[in-house]
Amino acid sequence: MSKATPSIQSGTTPSPQETRSGYSANCPNRTDDIVMYDVPEPIQVTGIEAYKETWKLFFDHNAAGSDRFRLSDVQIVASDDVAYAHGLLTIGGGDAHCRLTLGLRRTDGEWKVTHEHHSIPIKLD
Amino acid sequence: MSKATPSIQSGTTPSPQETRSGYSANCPNRTDDIVMYDVPEPIQVTGIEAYKETWKLFFDHNAAGSDRFRLSDVQIVASDDVAYAHGLLTIGGGDAHCRLTLGLRRTDGEWKVTHEHHSIPIKLD
Repeated sequence: MSKATPSIQSGTTPSPQETRSGYSANCPNRTDDIVMYDVPEPIQVTGIEAYKETWKLFFDHNAAGSDRFRLSDVQIVASDDVAYAHGLLTIGGGDAHCRLTLGLRRTDGEWKVTHEHHSIPIKLD
Repeated sequence: MSKATPSIQSGTTPSPQETRSGYSANCPNRTDDIVMYDVPEPIQVTGIEAYKETWKLFFDHNAAGSDRFRLSDVQIVASDDVAYAHGLLTIGGGDAHCRLTLGLRRTDGEWKVTHEHHSIPIKLD
């Protein structure tokens, strides 16, 4: 495992300095050909422009803030240039209710997310 | 990227020779400490024994068969010893309705899944 383990924190949580519009406009550390499986439909979102649109939708319905997302149970598996990470996510308080998986590649020394999978499990009666 | 790219097909689809009970009893190519995010609750399933139980539940409600799972839009990113893969999944026919992400490590030449994330997107009205 490499010492240059990617930080998933930096890529998934807007810093206090980032406005909601700033974050959705920039979406740092993502590749142009990112494939995301988001909580709501559609079944997949492909490409950075479509990905940015999902953040605009999110911030239309959720407040921004540095403590908006809380990660727990995080595991990172990394080689020199490929890594994946997963953890549980709490959005806006309460118990962890969302799951997050990231896939990352390092090109020219820079880690970028090529794949993101968010989901909420279906409740069983 | 390594030539020894893992085959996600071999690990996710029971062969015709595998019975439903045989598959859930063995669950090949998974690590003992696998972390799975499944379609239904709970929010996470940890460890191979709990993982096997989810397959028993699945086969209680679904027929087995070599064409039970159809994968599409598959992408694999692999280094020599770490890889991730994702794709869309059709279970039992119709359009793709499920998303699958796998995280794999290679130890002593053998690729094993350490993480699995399955989900169905929430429908928007």
